[in-house]
Amino acid sequence: MTTRADGRADDELRPISFTRGFTSHPAGSVLVEFGQTRVMCTASVTEGVPPWRRGSGLGWLTAEYSMLPAATHERSRRESVKGKIGGRTHEISRLIGRSLRACIDLGALGENTIALDCDVLQADGGTRTAAITGAYVALADAVTWMGAAGKLNDPQPLSCMIAAVSVGVVDGRVRLDLPYEEDSRAEVDMNVVATDAGTLVEVQGTGEGATFPRATLDKLLDIAEVGTAKLFEAQRAVLADPYPGVLPTAN
Amino acid sequence: MTTRADGRADDELRPISFTRGFTSHPAGSVLVEFGQTRVMCTASVTEGVPPWRRGSGLGWLTAEYSMLPAATHERSRRESVKGKIGGRTHEISRLIGRSLRACIDLGALGENTIALDCDVLQADGGTRTAAITGAYVALADAVTWMGAAGKLNDPQPLSCMIAAVSVGVVDGRVRLDLPYEEDSRAEVDMNVVATDAGTLVEVQGTGEGATFPRATLDKLLDIAEVGTAKLFEAQRAVLADPYPGVLPTAN
Amino acid sequence: MTTRADGRADDELRPISFTRGFTSHPAGSVLVEFGQTRVMCTASVTEGVPPWRRGSGLGWLTAEYSMLPAATHERSRRESVKGKIGGRTHEISRLIGRSLRACIDLGALGENTIALDCDVLQADGGTRTAAITGAYVALADAVTWMGAAGKLNDPQPLSCMIAAVSVGVVDGRVRLDLPYEEDSRAEVDMNVVATDAGTLVEVQGTGEGATFPRATLDKLLDIAEVGTAKLFEAQRAVLADPYPGVLPTAN
Amino acid sequence: MTTRADGRADDELRPISFTRGFTSHPAGSVLVEFGQTRVMCTASVTEGVPPWRRGSGLGWLTAEYSMLPAATHERSRRESVKGKIGGRTHEISRLIGRSLRACIDLGALGENTIALDCDVLQADGGTRTAAITGAYVALADAVTWMGAAGKLNDPQPLSCMIAAVSVGVVDGRVRLDLPYEEDSRAEVDMNVVATDAGTLVEVQGTGEGATFPRATLDKLLDIAEVGTAKLFEAQRAVLADPYPGVLPTAN
Amino acid sequence: MTTRADGRADDELRPISFTRGFTSHPAGSVLVEFGQTRVMCTASVTEGVPPWRRGSGLGWLTAEYSMLPAATHERSRRESVKGKIGGRTHEISRLIGRSLRACIDLGALGENTIALDCDVLQADGGTRTAAITGAYVALADAVTWMGAAGKLNDPQPLSCMIAAVSVGVVDGRVRLDLPYEEDSRAEVDMNVVATDAGTLVEVQGTGEGATFPRATLDKLLDIAEVGTAKLFEAQRAVLADPYPGVLPTAN
Amino acid sequence: MTTRADGRADDELRPISFTRGFTSHPAGSVLVEFGQTRVMCTASVTEGVPPWRRGSGLGWLTAEYSMLPAATHERSRRESVKGKIGGRTHEISRLIGRSLRACIDLGALGENTIALDCDVLQADGGTRTAAITGAYVALADAVTWMGAAGKLNDPQPLSCMIAAVSVGVVDGRVRLDLPYEEDSRAEVDMNVVATDAGTLVEVQGTGEGATFPRATLDKLLDIAEVGTAKLFEAQRAVLADPYPGVLPTAN
Repeated sequence: MTTRADGRADDELRPISFTRGFTSHPAGSVLVEFGQTRVMCTASVTEGVPPWRRGSGLGWLTAEYSMLPAATHERSRRESVKGKIGGRTHEISRLIGRSLRACIDLGALGENTIALDCDVLQADGGTRTAAITGAYVALADAVTWMGAAGKLNDPQPLSCMIAAVSVGVVDGRVRLDLPYEEDSRAEVDMNVVATDAGTLVEVQGTGEGATFPRATLDKLLDIAEVGTAKLFEAQRAVLADPYPGVLPTAN
Repeated sequence: MTTRADGRADDELRPISFTRGFTSHPAGSVLVEFGQTRVMCTASVTEGVPPWRRGSGLGWLTAEYSMLPAATHERSRRESVKGKIGGRTHEISRLIGRSLRACIDLGALGENTIALDCDVLQADGGTRTAAITGAYVALADAVTWMGAAGKLNDPQPLSCMIAAVSVGVVDGRVRLDLPYEEDSRAEVDMNVVATDAGTLVEVQGTGEGATFPRATLDKLLDIAEVGTAKLFEAQRAVLADPYPGVLPTAN
Repeated sequence: MTTRADGRADDELRPISFTRGFTSHPAGSVLVEFGQTRVMCTASVTEGVPPWRRGSGLGWLTAEYSMLPAATHERSRRESVKGKIGGRTHEISRLIGRSLRACIDLGALGENTIALDCDVLQADGGTRTAAITGAYVALADAVTWMGAAGKLNDPQPLSCMIAAVSVGVVDGRVRLDLPYEEDSRAEVDMNVVATDAGTLVEVQGTGEGATFPRATLDKLLDIAEVGTAKLFEAQRAVLADPYPGVLPTAN
Repeated sequence: MTTRADGRADDELRPISFTRGFTSHPAGSVLVEFGQTRVMCTASVTEGVPPWRRGSGLGWLTAEYSMLPAATHERSRRESVKGKIGGRTHEISRLIGRSLRACIDLGALGENTIALDCDVLQADGGTRTAAITGAYVALADAVTWMGAAGKLNDPQPLSCMIAAVSVGVVDGRVRLDLPYEEDSRAEVDMNVVATDAGTLVEVQGTGEGATFPRATLDKLLDIAEVGTAKLFEAQRAVLADPYPGVLPTAN
Repeated sequence: MTTRADGRADDELRPISFTRGFTSHPAGSVLVEFGQTRVMCTASVTEGVPPWRRGSGLGWLTAEYSMLPAATHERSRRESVKGKIGGRTHEISRLIGRSLRACIDLGALGENTIALDCDVLQADGGTRTAAITGAYVALADAVTWMGAAGKLNDPQPLSCMIAAVSVGVVDGRVRLDLPYEEDSRAEVDMNVVATDAGTLVEVQGTGEGATFPRATLDKLLDIAEVGTAKLFEAQRAVLADPYPGVLPTAN
Repeated sequence: MTTRADGRADDELRPISFTRGFTSHPAGSVLVEFGQTRVMCTASVTEGVPPWRRGSGLGWLTAEYSMLPAATHERSRRESVKGKIGGRTHEISRLIGRSLRACIDLGALGENTIALDCDVLQADGGTRTAAITGAYVALADAVTWMGAAGKLNDPQPLSCMIAAVSVGVVDGRVRLDLPYEEDSRAEVDMNVVATDAGTLVEVQGTGEGATFPRATLDKLLDIAEVGTAKLFEAQRAVLADPYPGVLPTAN
């Protein structure tokens, strides 16, 4: 029987960990680890909303993803030095923002913005799904912070939890949470963003140099469900602890 | 019974048309229309490949998508004037490239590049799916042109046909090929890229301000299949005509 | 006697055509064709004026010219991808704006802006003169639209018609409306923008790798006059038809 | 009788001066003054030509125009800080390059490039015509320098002299060499680039918020001829002096 | 007697720590902490040198500094999104590069480049001095890695150690290693880069809204010496441990 | 005894000159020369302050440094054409702004901005120190201009004079005011900005490919003091003359 290089079963996640309060300035700051993939996810609260939303009384949530130059096997050029954001970065930033907006009532925030920053310190496959999963935890902390600061119209603006996982077909087998070594040679690659209510937020499946039958899509979704269930458990466990810092007091 | 504003059944495409030889300089040039959505798709053949591929003996296929400023209801600012490509443009350009690379044997092209340009002249929803579907026809013409010019290592480098369609949930109903009026208020929005061999190339489903159960995903895929089947028919019909221009002669 | 490759007399225009209502979102939308040169000219009306003009009570008219990548014989790189507008594009955009501002009373528009977009779908010489000539027709439609919408202080803000034509010295002969094949080897190249009142708006003559005596300038202007007279006729003929779409109603 | 604010006759130039050897690093360096307009024109010789010209055996001449921020009445923003070249700057840079290429045999330069830099230290109208006129003198010095350095295939690559002047209609009168005060309210504005052989290189006439009859164009050209004749005299006088610096010796 | 908010003596450093092997892809990877200031410093080895250095047989060392958006008290905008590097970032990147080049024999590297990336995860004053001090440790590890990989011409290319510390005048007192709270209200601010051989590499002192007598400069240098002595001790201690990862083997 | 190539003693400045009223539009305009180094320094007064300072009642002073392309021995590329400001330019612009803000009471300016532009016409070492020294003279003139225009809250907002000089170790000797020939091979290079009250504003010392003992730093500061004393004399002498132009009258 074919086994994975790291000894995992096909439907097994890598070791998952969340470090809340990883840094202390932002309202939420989480280091998320999916095996060797490590992403620093912060949620910063700022007053005001983008110009097109002013006067609406509604808040906003935005996200930016970035890879540190030395996060990858070969050092990659810094996008600030190139002077422009690449397509992949743009795409993932948009995905993270959309995914997290699915769980929050923006009306409850008043005209405030939550900025999620997901900076990859070390990449080993699945950086975008780790980023979404970690960003949810940072967001939960930021919401607690806003509540304490008296900035919420509604005490609980989060309607569900959000987690994401990558799945794919590697060596002809449907597998969960691909590390770089598997991801780089996967025939099909899919990212699934889900809620703990059992619904889907986003499904992106791509045949890399190959196409795939719908039956494969079904198997990929089955295994993704196994993964996100475990991720919700892990998020719940870590969020059971109190807010990792000093909460503000409303005036 | 709820009917659509334009009188279509839920699983009905808008009128589809392809105008081959729409312009005469590029090897393939097609105006594709999905109802009021009109995209000019061209396939230009140029010698050489990007630096990272040089010396491999393999060709390359790349794609760029762009919206003319007056294509939308409200004029949008030109990205060349802004000095940068927006996230949405980047994302769609990458999607078109990936989708069309799924049907072509790049080894057969030698070290030549096919550049697909998809410029939206008028937008009414589904511009990216129209672009992919039209780009396939332009690509087929470009391949014919390359064959005539003696630039192919293999006479038939296309392994299948590619078409794409948007599907979504609007007013609680699963619908095919959404115009702007439906797209802008869809609860779920999905783009499906498929092959005429019955396999999938890319599936991107998003809950817009809502999440969706897997049963909905299944219905969306069912109806997408109805749509792509019709699109393959239309592509086949239009490609039955000879190359719309003067073919080069190999020397 | 030397004849032109396309059989025309030296002072003969290529076949000219205007398709009004080419697309339906902008207030004016015209496809203009000078032989194989095809330019989509749109006139979009937006509320407000640039910052430096606010509070003046006057409107503004601006223009942007662009070449689609596959419009030329060899595909050219997209300026949005390069991240900057080239000198030629800048120069022609400014020329179109200046030329069309010569025929309109900006005070009659109130604080509204008309944006002219001239996108070259296919280039075969004379793209800037086709753009100006087509933009006039789009502008006339936009003015009709604004009148219907109750946005004009003065029912007829256009004081004259505007058309433009290229002239040059090719093979030692003074010729009208140069296609690419002639333009690329012209010794002298001149663009003339004129009004139907017999006056000039802009004259730009350049010796390309050669200089020219004033007598040549005179002959070039003579032949340009022949060309613009024909263009005014064609514009008048096509504008005799009613507005190609549904006019708004003022409230 | 209407007289000009500065007391000049309608067909009179402002005081013209050229300071050769204004700076010492470039092969040619000239401060040109047309009244209060002062432009530093340098001609730098560098080995090599742009990529598209390599291997041709031919040289190249290019030009860049720029306005120092404090050159204008109101300080203008620096284009390097904005991160892009404006349309006007682009247009004038291209005009200077084209104009000076008209007098030089690029084949005689070998694969070397002459870069003309025209930086406006103080602007009072006519900066582009002063720049062209001064650049010719800098170019003549650079050619002398190249000859001494043994870099010329032909000892005299300059076939004629080049000068430029602005003319316009102000207060209904045709006038030569407009200062800012006249230029800013001119009804018609024209720049004429000519050779001392009596031919024209470039003619650019624009009605600013007005159009003009051909008779006016003729009068403008007449008066421009008066101006350029004086400029050629002044150039000849200043170039009668020896090269203002130490010439290299060929090895 | 005035004491500091964090209880330190005026000439006392904050707690200093280095975590070697913080990430595993780059040859050197160190998390350096000066109190609450935390910087991830990596040293990546890449083949080749910048174009201007090719063929010299010499290596190169370059550095890039960046602040993560949520590192500061108020979130700052990402430079990659702005599309340009700010002046402060530029300045610090150049300082780090210059400082570390002072201790290395670039000839020993062959035509290889060491890229130092200093990304501030959390900022609390002294980010540039922490970056230099941490970058030295990362550089030492990268040199060990290169030696193992057989990429060095000389087994020990480092001629000395490098450390840096900030000093300043706060509340009229000369103090060492300023946190943000002191730095933001310092009257004089100085950064000193030194070697363990007792020499200086770089001294940058600035009066912030004030000027300072030379006697103050002397006191600042005295106290900086106390600080760098402690930093060299800490670097030596942490580098006494073996390379924190698997070394390559030369072939 | 080793002498300098230009015959100067080690502690001797090059010939220094200031030309006030070098151009006439800005409130202050000075050509400063340190030997062959020539910098045009202008001080432009504009209404308003940057957004972050609005409503404070305080003014602002900013500076921009730039090198003309032909100022250097080899022509350098224009930063406006590259589309971005280089690190060195950024660094020097910031230094000039900081240095001159040290001598002015910004509260006295009301909400007005003084923009200092330092454009290097010819570079021969020490451009930044010449720029600071010349900018002080331009600033003094701009302050006089503002007083006459009734724009000052306090008749004398300048609290001291500012001058700067470069010093370095060349051929093992400590030398003042290095020309390019010395600067390019200096072992240590330092720029000192001082006030005529005997205090320091900024000290930046760098070992170029070498490090230096503190004793050298002391000698460099000694000799810099000799230089700035002479510069203050020269500034005082030139500012003894009346304002070089027509002063405005307050209304």
